[in-house]
Amino acid sequence: MNTSVLNNDTIVALSTPQGIGAIGVIRLSGDKAIDICNLIFRTKSLKKKDLNAQVSHTIHFGVILDADDVIIDEVLVSLFKAPHSYTSENTVEISCHGSKFIQQQIIQLIIKSGARIANPGEFTLRAFLSGKLDLSQAEAVADLIASNSASSHQIAMQQMRGGFSGKIKLLRQNLIDFASLIELELDFSEEDVEFADRSDLKKLVNSIQRIVQRLIDSFEVGNVIKNGIPVAIVGKPNAGKSTLLNVLLEEDRAIVSEIPGTTRDVIEDELNIDGVLFRIIDTAGIRETTDIIESIGVEKTFEQIKLSSIAIYLFDAHEITSSELKLIVEELRPHLHNSQLVLVANKIDKEDFEYIKHEFTEFPDMLFISAKERTNIDEFKKQLVALFDKRIVNITETIVTNARHVEALRHTNVALIKVLEGLNNNITGDFLAMDIRNALHHLGTITGEISSDDLLANIFSRFCIGK
Amino acid sequence: MNTSVLNNDTIVALSTPQGIGAIGVIRLSGDKAIDICNLIFRTKSLKKKDLNAQVSHTIHFGVILDADDVIIDEVLVSLFKAPHSYTSENTVEISCHGSKFIQQQIIQLIIKSGARIANPGEFTLRAFLSGKLDLSQAEAVADLIASNSASSHQIAMQQMRGGFSGKIKLLRQNLIDFASLIELELDFSEEDVEFADRSDLKKLVNSIQRIVQRLIDSFEVGNVIKNGIPVAIVGKPNAGKSTLLNVLLEEDRAIVSEIPGTTRDVIEDELNIDGVLFRIIDTAGIRETTDIIESIGVEKTFEQIKLSSIAIYLFDAHEITSSELKLIVEELRPHLHNSQLVLVANKIDKEDFEYIKHEFTEFPDMLFISAKERTNIDEFKKQLVALFDKRIVNITETIVTNARHVEALRHTNVALIKVLEGLNNNITGDFLAMDIRNALHHLGTITGEISSDDLLANIFSRFCIGK
Repeated sequence: MNTSVLNNDTIVALSTPQGIGAIGVIRLSGDKAIDICNLIFRTKSLKKKDLNAQVSHTIHFGVILDADDVIIDEVLVSLFKAPHSYTSENTVEISCHGSKFIQQQIIQLIIKSGARIANPGEFTLRAFLSGKLDLSQAEAVADLIASNSASSHQIAMQQMRGGFSGKIKLLRQNLIDFASLIELELDFSEEDVEFADRSDLKKLVNSIQRIVQRLIDSFEVGNVIKNGIPVAIVGKPNAGKSTLLNVLLEEDRAIVSEIPGTTRDVIEDELNIDGVLFRIIDTAGIRETTDIIESIGVEKTFEQIKLSSIAIYLFDAHEITSSELKLIVEELRPHLHNSQLVLVANKIDKEDFEYIKHEFTEFPDMLFISAKERTNIDEFKKQLVALFDKRIVNITETIVTNARHVEALRHTNVALIKVLEGLNNNITGDFLAMDIRNALHHLGTITGEISSDDLLANIFSRFCIGK
Repeated sequence: MNTSVLNNDTIVALSTPQGIGAIGVIRLSGDKAIDICNLIFRTKSLKKKDLNAQVSHTIHFGVILDADDVIIDEVLVSLFKAPHSYTSENTVEISCHGSKFIQQQIIQLIIKSGARIANPGEFTLRAFLSGKLDLSQAEAVADLIASNSASSHQIAMQQMRGGFSGKIKLLRQNLIDFASLIELELDFSEEDVEFADRSDLKKLVNSIQRIVQRLIDSFEVGNVIKNGIPVAIVGKPNAGKSTLLNVLLEEDRAIVSEIPGTTRDVIEDELNIDGVLFRIIDTAGIRETTDIIESIGVEKTFEQIKLSSIAIYLFDAHEITSSELKLIVEELRPHLHNSQLVLVANKIDKEDFEYIKHEFTEFPDMLFISAKERTNIDEFKKQLVALFDKRIVNITETIVTNARHVEALRHTNVALIKVLEGLNNNITGDFLAMDIRNALHHLGTITGEISSDDLLANIFSRFCIGK
């Protein structure tokens, strides 16, 4: 995709997923979108209807007719006149029957009439190029489509609606104000004037740098929200790990399939609890252990814990004493890093509950469950979500979820730290100005105020076709 | 589904296919469709907008807001006010982002607001119940969505637009006129009047019966068009059957995948040539023969031919003489039934073409190809389509493709033949009237003038959800 040659030629694509369904939507955008539709659209009684003469945001029922006057389909045509459309161009959406054959026929007909197939993300690219969305908002559109939990959805929605951009733009404005004072000094440098109070400047840059740092730090959380909080379930082979996993996954699936017709392709090791996405590390390993006794060694356990944000140590409540457990915790602790350890006593269905509880009074946070009987599973899930809340997050805060953004923020941060060093060392305004411009550049790439063809091609090629 | 309890309660479903895409469309229909949408829809700046106060066939940009004022998505809402909608009810289509998560959230919200999930085909059922479509038109909607060739598509489109219904209704009207004359006679039976000239009546019923018979006969063709023309490729193991099959399938796929983003799930043994669908019988058998020499015996060959409409006998042009071929044709002929035999000499790349051609002058219709070099493959395909044209069909004629319809027509036919017998035997008017009513009943079930809950439930349960 060479974005520099982009013009208003008319593009077309199927915007709904592949496959048989009740309806499919074909989207056309560009200068000639309405003209092209005029060529192939007729009223139900096969009369011409000039869509150019119709009001924007209106819907027209009729048929699509091919060059041999064969009716391809009965359709609804939705009209969006420039600039009142997603792309800011003339846009037509043709809602046809959900048959691949029909959709192919219509798209072929539209191509013959002068449009070309859209590249992935090209509609959104046009929305960006027309100034309708900034770059981070455009990127959020793809995140929104891919979102699969309440929290990742909420972050993407906030970003799409400009929350994140607003923050970045404000930072950038502050830096620009600062830069202009410095540059003013440079203009009058002969006269040795200091327009800007250096200690005030230091305060300002300091506060900006702290915000940038906080945004960078939020990426770890953002990444976890987007991809799921990594959870390790470890324990001896007979502790009941695979039973617990199955119980958790089954309940998740049951919730998802409550609505007929909206079941999803289940990704085995993801778990959505109260809108928070958890990702179980090495599901395969957990499943295998039921068959292959002791096949998962200690090294493997440490590795899983290292990758996790939450490590669940599951054990048979009847096969371990309090002092043994203490030793195990001591052994695990050095490997925990950023991970929180949760001790879970399983199989409480087997014997007197109070008796078992008594054994472990030294561990007040321990959970007692029976995976087999589904006892206290809800408590267990609440605990997982609570850990997530405690560890992190108020989603109303701005959270970075995009690797490109965090990279740009890191570059910004480096430049800002140089500015601070410069201020501390009383270096001259021209060096300060260079570092500030550098910081401004990197901040600008986030919202796309500064962009290149390569960058845009890279970003939008990851979109699906039709968006 | 109990259609007798159907009322105007509001139904909702995802109308676009499952899966990630640029957009998805959620359809709402019923008395409260617009009221429910009013509860959850806001303008982009989160203000209320009374959709009831808006004009039908208009599109409104805004957001879907949940009960906690969290923005679920930015959407376009299309408004169709009763009776100007597919179902004749108030209908709203919400075009949202193509994320399963978002679609689930919105559908759940709509259910909480008072709608219920639609049954498969329930939107179209409502279109039927409101008189917008008759039953055979409604059935054509499902055929249209499932159509995968130009010919099956064209028949479904004709049927949906009322071509078939029109023919059936005309037949029915003729029969009703006839019946009313007979019934008039019954009213005056004391007076021994004959209002209807029996020989004119006989002519009329005869002509109706002939049309019904022709429609019944068209089902064989209709079925073939809908499901593909069965083609058997037979011949000795080294004749090159699997090479030919691969060449045909590859070219088909290449055409289909010309449009990026519209590749289909390839069903291995279907072949679309110039809009005509062919179905290769026992693809597996053909593929196996390259490995397992002589594994496909003579019995198997006869069986394949019996199932086919076109039987291709493929042979290595260098390994067979004209007289041997004559013997083979004689052997195959008794098994051909309704199938046409096509003789295809393969491997003409290996030696002098003219020499080979000379050997087989006794077979003027024989085709000479090289599957390996793709020589004359286009000729071969043209020949297949030509056989189809010759054997059958002018699609502008009415063709029955639906098993239910042909069943009703067969019952009608039986009743009409009884009427004719009655007329020939001069039976009394009341017996004639009974048989005519019987014929009328069965014809009426096709368009749904006569229907039952069970019948409707059976028909519409085969639809996809959202249609």
